[in-house]
Parts: sequence; C-alpha cells; structure tokens
Amino acid sequence: MTKTDIASRVYNHTWKLDPIIRSLIDTDFYKLLMLQMIWKLYPQVNATFSLINRTTSVRLADDIDEQELRDQLDHARSLKLTKKEAIWLAGNTFYGRNQIFEPEFLAWLAAFRLPEYELYREDGQFVLNFHGRWMETSMWEIPALAIINELRSRAAMKHLGQFTLDVLYARAKAKMWSKVERLRTLPGLRISDFGTRRRHSFLWQRWCVEALKEGIGEAFTGTSNVKLAMDSDLEAVGTNAHELPMVAAALATTDEELAAAPYKVLQDWNRLYGGNLLIVLPDAFGTAHFLKHAPDWVADWTGFRPDSAPPIEGGEKIIDWWQSKGKDPRDKLLIFSDGLDVDAIIATYRHFEGRVRMSFGWGTNLTNDFAGCAPAENAGLKPISIVCKVTDANGRPAVKLSDNPRKATGDPAEVQRYLKFFGTEDQVVQDVTV
Amino acid sequence: MTKTDIASRVYNHTWKLDPIIRSLIDTDFYKLLMLQMIWKLYPQVNATFSLINRTTSVRLADDIDEQELRDQLDHARSLKLTKKEAIWLAGNTFYGRNQIFEPEFLAWLAAFRLPEYELYREDGQFVLNFHGRWMETSMWEIPALAIINELRSRAAMKHLGQFTLDVLYARAKAKMWSKVERLRTLPGLRISDFGTRRRHSFLWQRWCVEALKEGIGEAFTGTSNVKLAMDSDLEAVGTNAHELPMVAAALATTDEELAAAPYKVLQDWNRLYGGNLLIVLPDAFGTAHFLKHAPDWVADWTGFRPDSAPPIEGGEKIIDWWQSKGKDPRDKLLIFSDGLDVDAIIATYRHFEGRVRMSFGWGTNLTNDFAGCAPAENAGLKPISIVCKVTDANGRPAVKLSDNPRKATGDPAEVQRYLKFFGTEDQVVQDVTV
Repeated sequence: MTKTDIASRVYNHTWKLDPIIRSLIDTDFYKLLMLQMIWKLYPQVNATFSLINRTTSVRLADDIDEQELRDQLDHARSLKLTKKEAIWLAGNTFYGRNQIFEPEFLAWLAAFRLPEYELYREDGQFVLNFHGRWMETSMWEIPALAIINELRSRAAMKHLGQFTLDVLYARAKAKMWSKVERLRTLPGLRISDFGTRRRHSFLWQRWCVEALKEGIGEAFTGTSNVKLAMDSDLEAVGTNAHELPMVAAALATTDEELAAAPYKVLQDWNRLYGGNLLIVLPDAFGTAHFLKHAPDWVADWTGFRPDSAPPIEGGEKIIDWWQSKGKDPRDKLLIFSDGLDVDAIIATYRHFEGRVRMSFGWGTNLTNDFAGCAPAENAGLKPISIVCKVTDANGRPAVKLSDNPRKATGDPAEVQRYLKFFGTEDQVVQDVTV
Repeated sequence: MTKTDIASRVYNHTWKLDPIIRSLIDTDFYKLLMLQMIWKLYPQVNATFSLINRTTSVRLADDIDEQELRDQLDHARSLKLTKKEAIWLAGNTFYGRNQIFEPEFLAWLAAFRLPEYELYREDGQFVLNFHGRWMETSMWEIPALAIINELRSRAAMKHLGQFTLDVLYARAKAKMWSKVERLRTLPGLRISDFGTRRRHSFLWQRWCVEALKEGIGEAFTGTSNVKLAMDSDLEAVGTNAHELPMVAAALATTDEELAAAPYKVLQDWNRLYGGNLLIVLPDAFGTAHFLKHAPDWVADWTGFRPDSAPPIEGGEKIIDWWQSKGKDPRDKLLIFSDGLDVDAIIATYRHFEGRVRMSFGWGTNLTNDFAGCAPAENAGLKPISIVCKVTDANGRPAVKLSDNPRKATGDPAEVQRYLKFFGTEDQVVQDVTV
C-alpha cells in the first residue's frame, strides 16, 4: 500500500507561491564581498542593473507569465537576513580569514531589503531594470537571474506527465554522475560550483552540489552560493566581477581616469581583502590592453580569472605575462569560469597540469544541463545566455567589452568609444551559449 | 497515480541506522551552561551518571533490543560539533548576552566527543553508567534519555500497520492542537519547550515546537533544545540543574561544607552568568531548609524554579520568603517545570496572575503525550519516569532529596543521612508519572 500524506498534498495543491529565492544569502558570495566594498567606498553612487537576454530567439515574455514573475520578485523583496544567517556571516571563516565582514556592514545588511524593480514587456522580452543606489541594486543580479531561469524551467515542465518528469530527472542525475566519474580521475583537481544564476532550480542546484560533495570529495572546493555553503558546511567561494571596473570606467571624466579605472578598483579591493581574494578579472575592456598597461604590482596578486578568452589561449597569455614580470606561474593561480563543460575542464587541466595552479568555477553546465534528458525534445529546458549587468552609473553609460565581442554589453556608441580607447587586440569571436 | 520515489524507498529500506541523536547540540541548553562552569571550575572532578528508571513496572531491557541501544549510543559517540554549530554558539545572543561561551571553552567543545559507557542487563532493566570526568559524563544525560525513550516508542510502534500509525499521529496532532487553543486564551503567558529528554521522538518534538511557534506566537518563549533553537531561530532557554548542588554536596567533607554546598554553587554560577540566568533551583535537599538558611543575596536573584513541590503550594512559599526579605514578588520570576500538563499550567497561571512573573517549562506532556491516541491500548507509548542522574563524585555518593520523597535519588543510607541533616519539613509525597 502506498500512503499519501493528505495534509502535505492539500498544502502542496493550495500553495500560493513556491518561492524560488528562499533567503537573501541565496546569492553568490562575491556579491557580498563587492557589496561591502561598495557600501564602504561608493555609498552615494547610483547604478542601474538591467536584465539582458543575449539569446534573443527565446521570447521570455511569451514563455513566462508576467504575474508569476512579479510574485517571485515581490517575494524576494520580502526577505531579510535571518538571525542564524547573520551569525554565520559574522562568525564563519572565509578564505581562511575571520571577520571578513565588518560589524557595521553586517548591521546595515541585517536591515537590507532588495529595492524596487521596473518591469514591462517589449517585443516578447521583459525589460527588467533596477534603479537606485549601487549598494542596493547590485544585490538584484543573482536573484533576478535565478528567478527568470527557474520560471522558465517551470514553464517548460508544466505540461509534462509524472513519468516523464521522473525520467527527466533520472536522466539528468545519471548524466551528472557520469561527469563526476570523469572528474574524479584527475588528481589534484580543484573545482567549485558557480551555477546559482543559471540554475534549473534551487533544489536541482542543491542536488548537484551534494552530488559533488559526495562524488569528488576534496576536489570539490566549495560553492559560490552562500546559503548552500552555510547549509552544507562547504566553503563559500568567489572574488569580484565586471561591475567594479565597469562602474569605475563609467564614472571616469577624463582619458587618464578611464585608463586608470581597471587598476583603481583593484587597489580598492586590496584595501579590503587580501591573500586568495586577490584575483584579477582582466577582460572587462580586453585582456591584451589590461596586461600591456598593468602596473607591476598586479603581478604580485595571487591569480587571474580569464572569463571570456578561450581557456587555453587566454591562460597561456597570462602565463607569458607573469614570466615577463619575472614571476613563476607555478606560484600563481588561474581560475577558469567561462561556460565550462567537462570536456573543457579536462582539456584545460591536462594542458596546464604542473605549470600553474588551477581552479575551475563550474556554472551553467553543472546546474542546468538537461540536454538529451527530456523524453521529448523540449527547447524550454535548454539554458539561455542571460545576464544582469550594470548599464549606467550616476547617469553615465556603463560598458563591458570582454575578449569576445559577443559578450560585450552597453550602449553601442559607447562600446565603439571604448573599443577605440582600449583597442581590439586579441578579441576572439566565440559563440556564447550560456 | 501515486508515485514512489524508488531511490528514497530503497535508501529507507536498507537504512543501517535511523539515528536518534543527530547532533551534539541536540541537548538541553542548560547542559552547555553548566558544562562551561564545570569545565572552568571543576575540570578534575570525576562524576558518574547513571540511568534510573523510576517506573520499575516497565522492564526496559525486555522492550528494547540491547544491540539497537548500543548502536544508538555508539552513533551519538561519533558526533562532533559541526562548523555551523560552533559558529552559532559563538555568535548567537543567549538571554540577551553576547559571547556567553568563552572562546577557549568553545575550542574545547569543538574537539569533544561523548565518553564511553557501561551497559549491561539486570532484572529486566538496563544498567547504564557513564564514568569519568564530570565535564564529559554530564553531557550524556540528555542523549541517553532521548535514546532510551525513542527506542521505547519505536518498539511500541514496530508492529502497527500504516493506517494505525497514520491515525495515531493524526490524533496526537489534534490533541496537541487542542492544548494550543487552550493556552492561547491566556494573555501574557510565557511557555517554553523542556521536552527533549522524554520526547516520543526527535521528529515529533520538532513538530510540537513548530506547532507552538505557529500556534501561540509570542507566548512561546523558546526551547531548551539547542539544535531546535538554532534550526528554527528560537531562543534557547534553561539555567541549571540538580547536578550542581548534588556534586558540591557529595564533595563536602564536613558538616559546614555540606550546609554551604547549595549556596556555594550559586556563587559559582553568579561568577559566570547574570541577569535572567540567575534562577535558583531550591529543592535538591528540600526547599524549606534551603530557604531557611539562605543568605540574603539569594533574594536578589531573578527567580526560582520550584521543581518538585506542587506548583501553587511551592510558589506561595517562595513568594512568602521573598516578602520576608522585603522583595516585591512582582519583580520576581517563578519558573514551573515539574510534570506540567495544560490543566496545571492554566490553574497555576490563574492562581498567580498579577502577583509574580511566571514562566512555564513544558516537558513530557508536550513532547510525549500519546494517551488515547493509539487505536488499540498501547502501554509502550505511555511515558515513564526515567532520569539520568549523577550518582557519585570523586567516588563519594551523590544524593538528591527534592520536596517529593518519590523523586529522591542516591544510595539509601546516604539519603537517610541527608534527610537527617537537611530535615524533612515540607516534604509532600506525590505520584511521579513523568
């Protein structure tokens, strides 16, 4: 006899909202590190964050119900840090350091709520903007993306039968476990979960993180998701993102300031953090220009995170640059995080093995890989390339070039101005799938 | 169609051990407060704790499989404080106070494991002793009791069918909710969960605690269970227990020291804690003698926890004593915690309303009341009166008298010696059901 728990069933069937974001720390750890810096150094700066769907063939506003989206965004706005979360942030050790967050910052964060949003539909897409103080709008990036992505998977699964769903997840689990089996053959591999923003769902991300914990053991160095790190006694990982040089560049009023912007934010960062958190993200306005003009102290930092060049090519250029600065790459760290799948991780690992320390941030292909899992073709389960980027700072347009022109964001005229300023050397067009 | 999750089912059916104790902080908060004091002031004292089943008609060793008991005790011994728990203990506020636990104590606790046990069967009962340092053996009290009680409920339910179990829990929930409805009619009521040691099971205690949280709101002032307090963002509550005066008395080598023992431990306590933690437990060797010989400073403490006298009678005597010391009882707190059910809570509340501050610690009748719930009479679900008490300290017998001769524990000759010394005034024989 199979028994159905009646109370659970009625509760499930009369559920008003199945929340996608369950906690204010269901976000990436680097958002909190950046937030503390913004709160401390740039509390008066305004910044707009905007949703950008680079997969324009997918008409999000046709797939996702606007009211459901509003309900989820409103629910996220209702969240506040819980007492347990505040205690954990204050008391946990991050990157070997105690009290990485100042008490005053945590007191401010305890009262924080996500600010208002602007939402409307245009040409089958959602226009979703967050206007206001940078230290408030910045926190929308991850929850906004996670909400859009999970609403999209829910819509894709809405009409599937129970067996179809059962097989779908069975295949996805089998697929995930095959990846685990391949990864655990690589000695000394260091890999972490970077998949919050593009995850299929919160529960699926949790399953994947727990599978890695059981499956690859020591090689699993943590998760960028703060809540999952807390709940599963894992390390919270991450450093900084493009929004820092993007805002610094947008605020520049002279060519000198613009040229200095990518290095200035590194100096800001260094004031607050140290050690393993000193990771350079070089590609906001092109890695070639960044390296050519970088002050010598940049070579003293722990490592680089090449985020848009092809990993082997991009890694080699950074190694060359370190050597030109008299550094031994074996003391240095490369963090690869751009659209990695298992093949790319293994190829990159084998290529650089023994020549440099490496770490892999595994995102969308970890937490949202259902390709070939649905019993019938289901385009809605294919991840899209969607980001939530800063688009202006104090009313001035913010731009990212990256090493791949398809990952550039911002006003086209401003992108041209930046390209002229920073140059196009080393730019490589690559398909952006996620 | 009802779907069974096959992986879950196989996992459940091949389960090696369904652990009763899941965490080292699945214990009463007062054990940690006392532990810090023992660790600090009495680190060299040895103390034996022993299981005492006062309901001798229940032959525990016939009901509970010895190997299952060993497996559960062994599992509890495998537990260590997790990182998240350590952070929470260090960072949480208890009774409005930060850092109630010293860093050195928490560092010691992080390495702590429950010590060895001695177990054998005698006359249908288990003899279960914990020998060693007081600061180690003391921590067995709550998990040992919770294990025995839950193994007993599991044994009582082993042969029940699925519908019978479903109805059993349905009735227990309905019964519990009727109590909630009665309690919420009392304005200003303050009640907390003291039911860890005698709970039906961990999951049932959690259900009851969550029901109180939803059902009586502000009137629910917390739980003595540290893990549940952490997991549900509730206050952890509790102060101290009889083991403190019992050990102090056992260690006394002269009549003067014996007479001073109950007050000496209060002074020790006062060195470490303050405010709402200054609660006197007066009955270890009889409340009448305690009050008669108490130094004046005892009247400055926040309150009393009468734990074995009938609540109204016992409360009145303490109020009289406060008044004799020139104190206004309305500034004072009485904590009632001895075998309370809803009727006793309501009667006591109404009796003292407006005359003294009150708080109720609700134990066995909260977390283990299945009377009338089983579709067929099931004696195994009736809670028994079982305790785990200190029985010797540095090889000298430890004794408790209490205000109810049926709650006395310890070597009979030694009980007689204490009775002669402390007197029998105010002793009231009451049935001890839980």
